[in-house]
Amino acid sequence: MHRRRYRVRLAAAVAAGLVLHAGIAWADSLVLTGGTVIDGTGKPPMVGATVLVEDSEIAAVGPDVAVPADARTIDVRGKYLIPGLMDANLHLMINIRLETLIKFEDRYDEIVLEAAQIALKTGQTTVFDTWGPLAALKTARNAINAGEAPGSRIYLAGNIIGFGGPLSPDFLGAAAPFLTKTFVKRINETWEQGTGRDLMWMTPEDVRATVAEYAGKGMDFLKYGASGHTDMHFIQFSPRVQRAIVEEGHKAGMTVQVHTTSVESLDMAIDAGVDIVTHGDISGPQVPIPDETLKKLVDRGIPVSVLPITQRRIDAYAEIHPRVPGAILAPYMKVGRENQKAMIEHGVTMLLSTDAGVENPVVAAESEGPHADPRTKLGEGHFNALAGLEELGMAPQEILRSATSHIATAYRVDDRLGTLEPGKVADIVVLGKDPLQSAAHYREIEMVVKDGAVVNLDALPVAPLISSIAAPETAPEE
Amino acid sequence: MHRRRYRVRLAAAVAAGLVLHAGIAWADSLVLTGGTVIDGTGKPPMVGATVLVEDSEIAAVGPDVAVPADARTIDVRGKYLIPGLMDANLHLMINIRLETLIKFEDRYDEIVLEAAQIALKTGQTTVFDTWGPLAALKTARNAINAGEAPGSRIYLAGNIIGFGGPLSPDFLGAAAPFLTKTFVKRINETWEQGTGRDLMWMTPEDVRATVAEYAGKGMDFLKYGASGHTDMHFIQFSPRVQRAIVEEGHKAGMTVQVHTTSVESLDMAIDAGVDIVTHGDISGPQVPIPDETLKKLVDRGIPVSVLPITQRRIDAYAEIHPRVPGAILAPYMKVGRENQKAMIEHGVTMLLSTDAGVENPVVAAESEGPHADPRTKLGEGHFNALAGLEELGMAPQEILRSATSHIATAYRVDDRLGTLEPGKVADIVVLGKDPLQSAAHYREIEMVVKDGAVVNLDALPVAPLISSIAAPETAPEE
Amino acid sequence: MHRRRYRVRLAAAVAAGLVLHAGIAWADSLVLTGGTVIDGTGKPPMVGATVLVEDSEIAAVGPDVAVPADARTIDVRGKYLIPGLMDANLHLMINIRLETLIKFEDRYDEIVLEAAQIALKTGQTTVFDTWGPLAALKTARNAINAGEAPGSRIYLAGNIIGFGGPLSPDFLGAAAPFLTKTFVKRINETWEQGTGRDLMWMTPEDVRATVAEYAGKGMDFLKYGASGHTDMHFIQFSPRVQRAIVEEGHKAGMTVQVHTTSVESLDMAIDAGVDIVTHGDISGPQVPIPDETLKKLVDRGIPVSVLPITQRRIDAYAEIHPRVPGAILAPYMKVGRENQKAMIEHGVTMLLSTDAGVENPVVAAESEGPHADPRTKLGEGHFNALAGLEELGMAPQEILRSATSHIATAYRVDDRLGTLEPGKVADIVVLGKDPLQSAAHYREIEMVVKDGAVVNLDALPVAPLISSIAAPETAPEE
Amino acid sequence: MHRRRYRVRLAAAVAAGLVLHAGIAWADSLVLTGGTVIDGTGKPPMVGATVLVEDSEIAAVGPDVAVPADARTIDVRGKYLIPGLMDANLHLMINIRLETLIKFEDRYDEIVLEAAQIALKTGQTTVFDTWGPLAALKTARNAINAGEAPGSRIYLAGNIIGFGGPLSPDFLGAAAPFLTKTFVKRINETWEQGTGRDLMWMTPEDVRATVAEYAGKGMDFLKYGASGHTDMHFIQFSPRVQRAIVEEGHKAGMTVQVHTTSVESLDMAIDAGVDIVTHGDISGPQVPIPDETLKKLVDRGIPVSVLPITQRRIDAYAEIHPRVPGAILAPYMKVGRENQKAMIEHGVTMLLSTDAGVENPVVAAESEGPHADPRTKLGEGHFNALAGLEELGMAPQEILRSATSHIATAYRVDDRLGTLEPGKVADIVVLGKDPLQSAAHYREIEMVVKDGAVVNLDALPVAPLISSIAAPETAPEE
Repeated sequence: MHRRRYRVRLAAAVAAGLVLHAGIAWADSLVLTGGTVIDGTGKPPMVGATVLVEDSEIAAVGPDVAVPADARTIDVRGKYLIPGLMDANLHLMINIRLETLIKFEDRYDEIVLEAAQIALKTGQTTVFDTWGPLAALKTARNAINAGEAPGSRIYLAGNIIGFGGPLSPDFLGAAAPFLTKTFVKRINETWEQGTGRDLMWMTPEDVRATVAEYAGKGMDFLKYGASGHTDMHFIQFSPRVQRAIVEEGHKAGMTVQVHTTSVESLDMAIDAGVDIVTHGDISGPQVPIPDETLKKLVDRGIPVSVLPITQRRIDAYAEIHPRVPGAILAPYMKVGRENQKAMIEHGVTMLLSTDAGVENPVVAAESEGPHADPRTKLGEGHFNALAGLEELGMAPQEILRSATSHIATAYRVDDRLGTLEPGKVADIVVLGKDPLQSAAHYREIEMVVKDGAVVNLDALPVAPLISSIAAPETAPEE
Repeated sequence: MHRRRYRVRLAAAVAAGLVLHAGIAWADSLVLTGGTVIDGTGKPPMVGATVLVEDSEIAAVGPDVAVPADARTIDVRGKYLIPGLMDANLHLMINIRLETLIKFEDRYDEIVLEAAQIALKTGQTTVFDTWGPLAALKTARNAINAGEAPGSRIYLAGNIIGFGGPLSPDFLGAAAPFLTKTFVKRINETWEQGTGRDLMWMTPEDVRATVAEYAGKGMDFLKYGASGHTDMHFIQFSPRVQRAIVEEGHKAGMTVQVHTTSVESLDMAIDAGVDIVTHGDISGPQVPIPDETLKKLVDRGIPVSVLPITQRRIDAYAEIHPRVPGAILAPYMKVGRENQKAMIEHGVTMLLSTDAGVENPVVAAESEGPHADPRTKLGEGHFNALAGLEELGMAPQEILRSATSHIATAYRVDDRLGTLEPGKVADIVVLGKDPLQSAAHYREIEMVVKDGAVVNLDALPVAPLISSIAAPETAPEE
Repeated sequence: MHRRRYRVRLAAAVAAGLVLHAGIAWADSLVLTGGTVIDGTGKPPMVGATVLVEDSEIAAVGPDVAVPADARTIDVRGKYLIPGLMDANLHLMINIRLETLIKFEDRYDEIVLEAAQIALKTGQTTVFDTWGPLAALKTARNAINAGEAPGSRIYLAGNIIGFGGPLSPDFLGAAAPFLTKTFVKRINETWEQGTGRDLMWMTPEDVRATVAEYAGKGMDFLKYGASGHTDMHFIQFSPRVQRAIVEEGHKAGMTVQVHTTSVESLDMAIDAGVDIVTHGDISGPQVPIPDETLKKLVDRGIPVSVLPITQRRIDAYAEIHPRVPGAILAPYMKVGRENQKAMIEHGVTMLLSTDAGVENPVVAAESEGPHADPRTKLGEGHFNALAGLEELGMAPQEILRSATSHIATAYRVDDRLGTLEPGKVADIVVLGKDPLQSAAHYREIEMVVKDGAVVNLDALPVAPLISSIAAPETAPEE
Repeated sequence: MHRRRYRVRLAAAVAAGLVLHAGIAWADSLVLTGGTVIDGTGKPPMVGATVLVEDSEIAAVGPDVAVPADARTIDVRGKYLIPGLMDANLHLMINIRLETLIKFEDRYDEIVLEAAQIALKTGQTTVFDTWGPLAALKTARNAINAGEAPGSRIYLAGNIIGFGGPLSPDFLGAAAPFLTKTFVKRINETWEQGTGRDLMWMTPEDVRATVAEYAGKGMDFLKYGASGHTDMHFIQFSPRVQRAIVEEGHKAGMTVQVHTTSVESLDMAIDAGVDIVTHGDISGPQVPIPDETLKKLVDRGIPVSVLPITQRRIDAYAEIHPRVPGAILAPYMKVGRENQKAMIEHGVTMLLSTDAGVENPVVAAESEGPHADPRTKLGEGHFNALAGLEELGMAPQEILRSATSHIATAYRVDDRLGTLEPGKVADIVVLGKDPLQSAAHYREIEMVVKDGAVVNLDALPVAPLISSIAAPETAPEE
C-alpha cells in the first residue's frame, strides 16, 4: 500500500510534466566537445577534449574522438568537465526534529527523494547515506535506480550498528517524555532494525548473529559505532565485537565503516579492520590524533571521511561559544581541523563528507547557531567543505579526488564510478570556471549529466516537502 | 481551501453510505408510544405516554395525543424517555499531546467531529465545548448544524480568555524546546486568538477592547480564567478586569463563564457577575468552599459546572499517590467531593461536566494513572459523572436535570432545549431501564433522537481518526 | 545555645580589638564644624554650618551653635554633611544559593551582620530588610541595637506573606530534588514562618488569623505578595484577603507594604490600603503603569520603593538578551525605567531600593549576567541606584530625600531618622564632594557617624563569611 | 592547619574519655579460651581451642597452648571465633548528596572515621575503600593506624581512574547548575586528583604518565573504570590504555582492580591483567556472563568482588519497579544473582562487598526505594550480603572466606590478615552462635578484637556526624 501511494504521487508528478524534464537523454549518444576535462584520476587537465557518452557510459575521452553522426552534441568550450561529485557521509533524512518525525512519519521516502534531488541539483551524482530509516532509503534508492524519479544515486547503510534511533538517548531522547512510548518505540525501530544500543550488552556471538541477520536487509554497506554518539568519549564495543561486525559485513560482500570520535576509539577501529573511518578527523576537544595512528591509516590504506569546515565558520562558532548549545562542538571542530591538516601532511586518503540533509527553512531561520558557511545544509555543505579543504592547503587535484574518485575507491564502486574514463558511468559535472584554480568554482555548475543523461536542474526538487516550507521572516521571540 | 478539503472528505463518507444512515428522519412525523416520559422538568414520570415529534420539534407529550395517520410510530413500551443528555464542560479536541497536535494539525475539525459523534452515540445530543481551537470547532459545529454530518449539537467558547494555548506554560509548555518556535507560536495562536496570557499585563481598557474584538469571532459563549491553569492557586485577573470581560460578553449577547480553582478566585468571579462557574467545585487541596460563598451562589442563581467522580476513582487515585504525576490532583478531588456534597445541601444548581475528549487508545493503554471509572474519556465520562452524583446523594430527578434542563437554562438555551416539553427541539434518549432507580441505567441507551430524527448509532463515529488508533496490547517498557 | 555561640564569636572579635574600633564615641559630645549641611528636608544647603551631637542625637545645626568645652570637634570644612543613607528594600541574607544555604545554615545571623556592616561602611546607616530569615535577622538587629556589634540599623519584615521560602517554587524550587525533603522543608519554614504559599488556598478569615499570629513574632513591619514572585503576571491574593493582611498589620502597629509586578496588581494593592509599594515601578514587560494609577499613588500619598538602574546597565542587559537567563528581566527593566520617569513627572514619592545583599565573590566572578553597574551588590548597588535617579532627571535634593527622609517618612520612623534636624538621631555621612552637583559624589564618603559615634569604617565588615570568599581569577569552564 | 583541627577534635574526644575506652589493650597478652575457632582457611572448626595473642599478633591457636602467667584471659566457651570480617568494596564517604558534600566539606575525614568505626562495631576489622576523597581517607587511615582513633583498618584507592567526581556526569552532575562552578570543580577535584573523565580523550602514553604520577599520592591500591558509571553499557578505555593503567599500578607495587558492568567490559579487563574485578557480577540488565568468561576468571585466578543481596530485597525492588528511580537497577540485580550462582558453580573466587557507607538517617527515612535488607547501609549491608551468599547455596566455610581470607589474598595482604593463624595480626570476632550453621549468626557479635585489643564497641562511633542526624518520623510530603 505504501508502495502504491508512492507511485501514485510520482505519477502525478509525471503527469505534471515534472519528471519528464527532470532527467532525460535526448538520444542514444551524447557528445560534449571542446571542454577542459579534469578526469578525477589526478592526471593533468585535458584541454579541448571531446567526451563521448554511449549507453549511459563514457565511451571515449580525448582530443580526437570519433563522433557518431546522430549524436546530440553540446559545445562546452571554455567549460570544465569533472566527474559527478560525491558525498561520503550524509543523512538524506536528517530531520529528526519532532515536527518532521511525526508529520511525515509515512513519507520519509519522499523526504529522502527530495534530498537526493537537491544533492543532484548541486552536482552530487552519488551520495552515501550513513544513517537513516532503512525502508524509506531503500524505496527512494530503488525508485531512482529504476528511473522512476530523478535524484542522486544513493548508497545506504541504514542504522549505525549499536546506535539507537532518533528518540533514543543517542539523539533526541530528552523529547521522549512528551510522546507516547508506542510512538517512540516505533520510530526508534524504524532506524534501529534490531541493531540498537542493546548490542552493547551482548556477547560477541550474539552480536555476530544479529549483524548477520541484519546484513540481509538490503543495505549497500555497513556502519557501526565505535564511539558513543552523544557520549563521544566512550567506547561502544570491545575489539572482538568490532571484529565480529566487520567480518559479518565482509562476509555479506559489503564494506564496513565506523563512527569514531576519540583517539583510542579510532585506533581500535583500525585494528578491527574497517574499510572507512567516518569523521575520523574528530578526536575530542583536547588531544589531536597522534602521528602513530595517522601512519597506521596510511599503512593500511584506510580512507577517512572528514568534515572540513571553513575558518569563517570556526570563527562564528568561537564567537558564540559557550552560550549556544550547538557550539559545544566548537573545540572539537578546532582539534578536527588540526587533524585534517596532519592528515594531509601524512598522506591519509580523505573523503569529503558533510553529515548534510535537507534543511528545514524554519529550523534554519530559528537556529541560534552560526549561519556562516553551513556544513549540514544539503546543497550547500559540500561547497563549503571543498572550500575548507582548500583552506587547509590540500592540492587542487586532491580536493577533486576527495569528492570523487577517492570516495568511489573507498566504497569499492570505482569500477563504475568516480572518474571520467572510458567504461565508467557517465556522471559529469560541467563547471563554468576552473575548479583547480579555486574551490569556489565548484559552485559554477552549468550542467549535470547523470547516467549519460542531461539533468533538468530547474525541475529539482520535484515535489519538495521540507525545503519548500515557508520560514518566518524573523524567528518568534520567546 | 480548508473548507473544500473538508467537503471532499465528507462527500466520500456520504458516498460510502455512512452519513446517509447516521441520522435521518423517515417521515415528517415521529411518534414514540407507550414509554415512561421523564421530561427533565422535575415533574413525576408519565407512564404510558405518547410523544409526537413534528418538524423536528416535540409537538405533544401525554397520555392522549392525537397521532397523524402517516406518522412513523415506534413502540417504546417498557422504555424510559428522557431529554437528550448534555455536558456543560468538555473539550472535543483535548488531544494536546504532541503526536496528535502535529500529525493532525490541519484536521482538528475532523477530530472535533469524531468527538461530537462519540458524544451523540452515548446519548449526549448537546455539548458545550469550553476550550478548543476556534476555527476547527466552528467548522464542525456548522457542518453538524447544516446537516452535513451527524454529531452532538456543539456550543463553543474557543479559548479560555487569559490562558495560553496547548504549548504555553498553561499546558504542555515543557515540550516547546523540542519544537520550532514557529510551530509553537502557530499552535498557541490557533487556540489563543489574541486572548492569551499577555492579557494579564494589560490595563482593563485594553482587555476590554481585546475581548470586544474577540467576541465577534463566532463563538457561542465566552469563558475566561479567574485562576491560573497549572498555577491553580494564583488569581488571573483583577476584579475590574473580570468585570470588563463579563460586560463585553454580555454586550455581545453571550453568557460568560469562568474557570476558577480556589476559594477566593470563586468569590471574585461571583462578584464579577459571571453566568456559570466552571468546575467551581475545585477549591484547592486543603480548604473547602465556605458556606458563605455557597449561599452567594444560591442567592444569585449562579449554576456551577462540576466534575463528579466515583469513590472508586478517588480510591484508585489515593492508591497511586504520590508517585504518578496525574495523581497530584487526588487531594483536589477529595476536597472537590466535599464541595459537591455541600452544594447539594445548600441547593446550588449543579451542571454535569467531564472535561472529556476523544481518548487516544495508545495514551490510555500507556497511562500510569487510574483506569477506574474514567472521567475525561468521552462517551464514558458522563456515565461515571452521573454515578458520582448518585453517590453524593443527589435526588434522582435532580441528577437528570443536572445533565439536561439545568444546563440548558444556565446557557440560556432553555427555550429550545433541555426538556421533553411541547415546542422544544426533539432531542430524546430512550433508555431500557429506569434512570431514577439507578444512575447506572443511563448506560442502557436503546435509541437516540436528535432534531426529531432517529440517530443511526452503529454508524458513529463515521470516520474516526483518534479512537480508531490501534493501541499496544502492553505498553512498551522504558 | 545558639545565642551563646554568637556571643562567643563576638567576644573573640572584641578581644581581637575589632569591635572596639568599629563604632565608638570618644566623648559625650561630638561637633562637626565648617561643613556644608544638606539636611534631607529639601531646604537649601547650609554652608559653614556646625553640627552639635549630644547623647547620640543632633542637638543643634546652624551657623552659630554653642559648642561644649569638652566636645570632640572635627573640622569638616570643604565637606558635605548629609543624613545617613537608607535602603528601602534590600535582603541582607540574599545568598539563597545552595552552597550558602547549606554551609551556613546555623550562621545566617552572621551573614546578616556582615551585610549590615557592609551597608554601614558605604554610608547606609539604616536599612529595611523586606524578605529574609526572621530569627537570624532579629538576632543581628538586636545585637546591633544593643551595641554588641557595629552595623547598619536594621528594620525587618521576615517573610513576604504568601511567598514560599528559598527552596519553594517562588525561588530555587528546581534544586529541591537534589536535597532531602527534610532540609527543604526546614529551610523554607525558616523563611515562611507559617505564611507561605498555602495562604493562597485559605479563606480571608484564616489568612487574617494566620497574619495576626505572625505579626507577634517581632518583625518591624509587614510585607505581602500581591503578585506572584516567579509568576510575575499572576495576582496572589483577592482584594478582601489583601485588606485583611493590611488591617492586621496596622492593628499590630506596623506599616504594611506590598510586592507587586503588574498594572492590575498595583492597583489592587493601592485599594487594599498599603503604606508602601515595593518595586511598584515594575509592571511587566509590555505595558507601563497608566497615568490614572500614578495619580492614585500621589492622591493617597503612597510612596513607591523603586529599583533605579543606569542606562549603562540597561544596555548591558540588552546586549546579552535573550541568551542569558538573568536577562529575562531586561524588558521589565526597560518598562520599569519608563515608569520611574513617569513617577517623577507625576510627583510620586520614590524610595531608593536595591534588592541588594552581600555578593558572594565566586558567584559574581562566574555570573554570565551584566557586570556593568551592579544593582544587587550590597555596598555598590545604592550608588548605582542614585546615579540611575540622576539619569532619570530627578532633582538633586529629591534624589537625596529618596534615600533618606522619604524612606523614614514612609516607614513612619521620621520622628527619629531621616534628616539632620535637631532631635533626630545623629546619623551623618560626610562626603568629600557635593552630592547635589553629581550623584557620583555619594561615593566620596569620608566619615560616617551613626548614633552619634564615628564609625571605624576600616574595620568593616568585622568577621566576613561571604564577602571574604576567594573568587577564582577566571570562572571554570564547563 | 587541617591536621591541627583534626587533632584538636580528637583531643577533645580523648578528654571526654571516649577514645580511651574505644580500643585498648589491657595487657601485653590476651588469651581467649574454650571457644570454637573457625580460622578462615577452610579447615574444620577447632572446638575448645585457646587463642593466644601477643604483641597484637596471634601467637598460638590450638587445644594445648601455653598461656603466660600475666595474660588477661577471657573465657569464650560456647562462642565461635572467626577472623575479623572484611569488606572488599565500600565507600566510607559515600554521602554524595549535596547537604553532606557542602556542609561537611572540610570534615570528610571525620565522616570517614565515623564510617570506619561503624564498620568496626559490626565486626569489620579491615575495609577496602574503592572510591572516595583521597586526602580525607588518608587522614582517617593514618589516624587509625597510628592508634589515634579507633576504627576499622582502611585500605584505600582514592578515585576510580577515569571517573569524574561526585558532581560530574558520572554521579550527581544534574545538580551542578544549582551550584557555583568553582564549588563543583573543587569537589570533583577532591575526588578526581587529575584522573577524571578527561583521560578518555588521552593517548595511552598520556594516561600512563598521569597514572604514574597519581600512583605516588599515598593510596594503597589502584582502581580504574572499564565501564562507564552511569553509562553502564559503554566501555571506558581501550585495551592498551587499560594495560598501561595496570602496568603502572603494578610498577608502583599496588594491586589494580577494575569497575566493570558488562560482559565485554569484563572480558577486556581480564585481558588487561587486573588483580580484582569489582562487582564483576554485574553484566547489565539482559545477558549473563558467558561460561567462557567465568572460566577465564578461574584459570587466571582473578577474584571477583560481588554484591550479593537477598531474595527479599530483589522482591522489594521488583514490586516498585519501574516507578522508583533507584529501581532501575532491579533487572541488573536479577542478572547479577544469576551470575553469582554461576560463579559459585564455576569456582570463581568471590569477595564479599557492599558499596556501603554511613547512611544518613534522613535520607533513609525519605527514600522511596526498598528498605528490605539494605545493601549499602554500613553496619548492616555486610550481614545481608552474607545472607545473600547463603541463599545462593555457597558453602558455609566459603561464605566466611569470601569475607575474610579471600579478600586478604586478593589484596595481597594475606601475610598479615585474613585468618586466625599464628603470625597473623590478631583481628578476631567472637560470635555467640555458629556462623557455619546459619549466616544470620554473623550478627551475633559478642566481642571484637583488633590488633590484639578488645574493642569497646559501645563507644563506637565516637563522634558521629552523619549517623546521629535526627530523622523525621515521617518524610515530609511534597
